[in-house]
Amino acid sequence: MRAAFYISDGTAITSEVFGHALLSLFPTEFEHHTISFVETIEQALEAKEKINKASKRTGEPALVFHTFVNHEIREIIDSCDALIYNFLEQFVAPIEKQIGIKASPKAHRTHSIHEKSYDYRIEAVNYALANDDGSNVTNYEDADVILVGVSRSGKTPSSLYLALQYGVKAANYPFIDDDMEDLKIPEFLKQHKKKIFGLTIDADRLMDIRDNRMSNSKYASSRQCRMELREVEKLYKKEKIPFINTTKFSVEEITAKILAEMGLQRYKY
Amino acid sequence: MRAAFYISDGTAITSEVFGHALLSLFPTEFEHHTISFVETIEQALEAKEKINKASKRTGEPALVFHTFVNHEIREIIDSCDALIYNFLEQFVAPIEKQIGIKASPKAHRTHSIHEKSYDYRIEAVNYALANDDGSNVTNYEDADVILVGVSRSGKTPSSLYLALQYGVKAANYPFIDDDMEDLKIPEFLKQHKKKIFGLTIDADRLMDIRDNRMSNSKYASSRQCRMELREVEKLYKKEKIPFINTTKFSVEEITAKILAEMGLQRYKY
Repeated sequence: MRAAFYISDGTAITSEVFGHALLSLFPTEFEHHTISFVETIEQALEAKEKINKASKRTGEPALVFHTFVNHEIREIIDSCDALIYNFLEQFVAPIEKQIGIKASPKAHRTHSIHEKSYDYRIEAVNYALANDDGSNVTNYEDADVILVGVSRSGKTPSSLYLALQYGVKAANYPFIDDDMEDLKIPEFLKQHKKKIFGLTIDADRLMDIRDNRMSNSKYASSRQCRMELREVEKLYKKEKIPFINTTKFSVEEITAKILAEMGLQRYKY
Repeated sequence: MRAAFYISDGTAITSEVFGHALLSLFPTEFEHHTISFVETIEQALEAKEKINKASKRTGEPALVFHTFVNHEIREIIDSCDALIYNFLEQFVAPIEKQIGIKASPKAHRTHSIHEKSYDYRIEAVNYALANDDGSNVTNYEDADVILVGVSRSGKTPSSLYLALQYGVKAANYPFIDDDMEDLKIPEFLKQHKKKIFGLTIDADRLMDIRDNRMSNSKYASSRQCRMELREVEKLYKKEKIPFINTTKFSVEEITAKILAEMGLQRYKY
């Protein structure tokens, strides 16, 4: 199996996203290696040794995705026995020309602290935790979005991802068994109806997840899961609450759909 | 201010990371717009209209970063009154040639559910929440890493980010006032010493954060913050616990450093 390396003088997240987007187009498997914080000549030489060893071991030149701006380090990485892809390089010159502004590369820009965005995100994480699972129903004024759904339909990971990735404040409120007989939007949520977004999930998947948590319980039974999902989906439709079925989607996709549907700004940038 | 658009038929995360990495090299501000889930001709035409309007409104051609693989949609986007950067395109052909495998582009590959990785991540989020703030000291067998530090030094956001982004199981344990007189690694942590990673933070920043939470408290006082930080840093050094000061780092940087330092695999890919 061919090795792929993602390297930078910072987190290497940009190199990873870039390399992974490209490699996911190829119908084959790769070994993935990330080398972050390569900031000195010595560290660059260490990285080179790892890359050269991988090329030798696998019998095929490794693929190296990098974003170095420092010339000395770049030369070392570019001299590896490997296929080198420096994706910033190819685009900087055309953009400079087209917008008439010279780039002024600094290390660690992309995933370092931006003014404001950091506080937004930490504040949003604290908000999501304090307003998880209906724990603080008096605090919905501050919410950017309120996720609702049955237990284990994906509310908590989605709320946390919205906070960490986008600085968006997401509360979440569960509909539980006791609510089901005559399911309605609770009084305290009514005034925030425009912020409500519903999650649902396939019954079989929900049964699996609940069974992992409480084996052979009523909570995890087919009958209970199907009834709860039927009721919440009926409510979403009746009240025209936008919703998605999370079964086949990653947390990135679920949250991107929530942002798009609710017209929410991403505070991160 | 010139407008920048990040567009794709999926989450648009790849386009955002790519465009943002490039634009952060330029010493100027941009308006940022993300348009995700552009999956139909109609949606592409809507996006085109938005882009053309932005170019007109700002008086300068917008920058458009995209990753479309569908030809019909791509042609529409490429025909906007804007500067178009399709970064996958420039790299696919060279990689195909160099590794001798044809790319087989599918929509929604990069940030959609990968086998295994999804469950890892949700499991890791549940683990991080169940083991937040020392709430479950009997469950450290399963941890990939145990973050320690004083209250508000960044343990919880870091644990959650490790879980959501990398599928890494991070517990976190706080050192509190009562521990300070004779600060030691607690008995139940000793057997997991190799998993311990310490966080610290500048006293002034800690005072700010704590004061926001509990104004004018002993907890937020200069004396208390300085004492707690002095004691934990002394412990880290004495016990050779790897640690970082989180003050100037984003959660991406903190977690990337933790992964690098602890030699942890990223489960996401």
